[in-house]
Amino acid sequence: MLILGLDPSLSCTGWGVVRAVGARLIHIANGQVKTDAKAPIAERLHHLHDAIASVVATHQVDRAAAEEVFVNKNPQSTLKLAQARGVVLAACAASGLTVNEHAARKVKKAVVGTGAADKAQVQAMLKVLLPGAEVAGADAADALAVAIADAHLGRGM
Amino acid sequence: MLILGLDPSLSCTGWGVVRAVGARLIHIANGQVKTDAKAPIAERLHHLHDAIASVVATHQVDRAAAEEVFVNKNPQSTLKLAQARGVVLAACAASGLTVNEHAARKVKKAVVGTGAADKAQVQAMLKVLLPGAEVAGADAADALAVAIADAHLGRGM
Repeated sequence: MLILGLDPSLSCTGWGVVRAVGARLIHIANGQVKTDAKAPIAERLHHLHDAIASVVATHQVDRAAAEEVFVNKNPQSTLKLAQARGVVLAACAASGLTVNEHAARKVKKAVVGTGAADKAQVQAMLKVLLPGAEVAGADAADALAVAIADAHLGRGM
Repeated sequence: MLILGLDPSLSCTGWGVVRAVGARLIHIANGQVKTDAKAPIAERLHHLHDAIASVVATHQVDRAAAEEVFVNKNPQSTLKLAQARGVVLAACAASGLTVNEHAARKVKKAVVGTGAADKAQVQAMLKVLLPGAEVAGADAADALAVAIADAHLGRGM
């Protein structure tokens, strides 16, 4: 079972693919999609859509997962995030993928064992759970955490 | 010059195409893209993306325009709207279209003459500006208003 975890944002979307074999997890790939802050927003969103569609096509994943949306206090930030998230979800569905959504607390609990874990704890557990994986950055790490959580939480949960 | 006006939302996105010949406007087409409220959100967004890409391809428009985002007081509504808007913008950019953004007040001012115009006034002016156009619904009417405003306000404004 190949699972794609996603951490969408307009400036830098993280993605990570893990293979779940029973309770065992194997790191397959991860990366980050950055968009040019100087480009028009429509162009940035199109670039993001194409890049995620390409990740899905390359890795032939079985399902995808993303964190539930975090509503930022700054409405403009929320809008940018949600627009990016929209194209990431659409790019997955274009290949017939289901996208499970998990609350941030559940992701942390599944990866670290506590919903109150901080970023450093999540990243430390990634090294244990996916030994040898070279992680492209903080957003790719978050995406891998979502993929791991989805593997633990199971389909459709 | 063929202009596509857009009024994005997850449940029902309005679109309208007008031809601007100097100061004259000719109605070309309009419609609404509805998505199934019972379907997963990723699927709905993908459907919307494809439908708008198809409108762009069918009408070979020269540019597109949408209202600037209205930040709803309900964060969940804003998120749904922004996710839909993201895929609509991405679908336009996929065909190399520029998407101009106009404040709602500017759209009303361009169509009716006052930024405080209500929906009924906008729809009445549509009948004057685009005689004979059969409008698919309220969202299509809003989209046509955006297209008309964009024709008046000019490229990139």
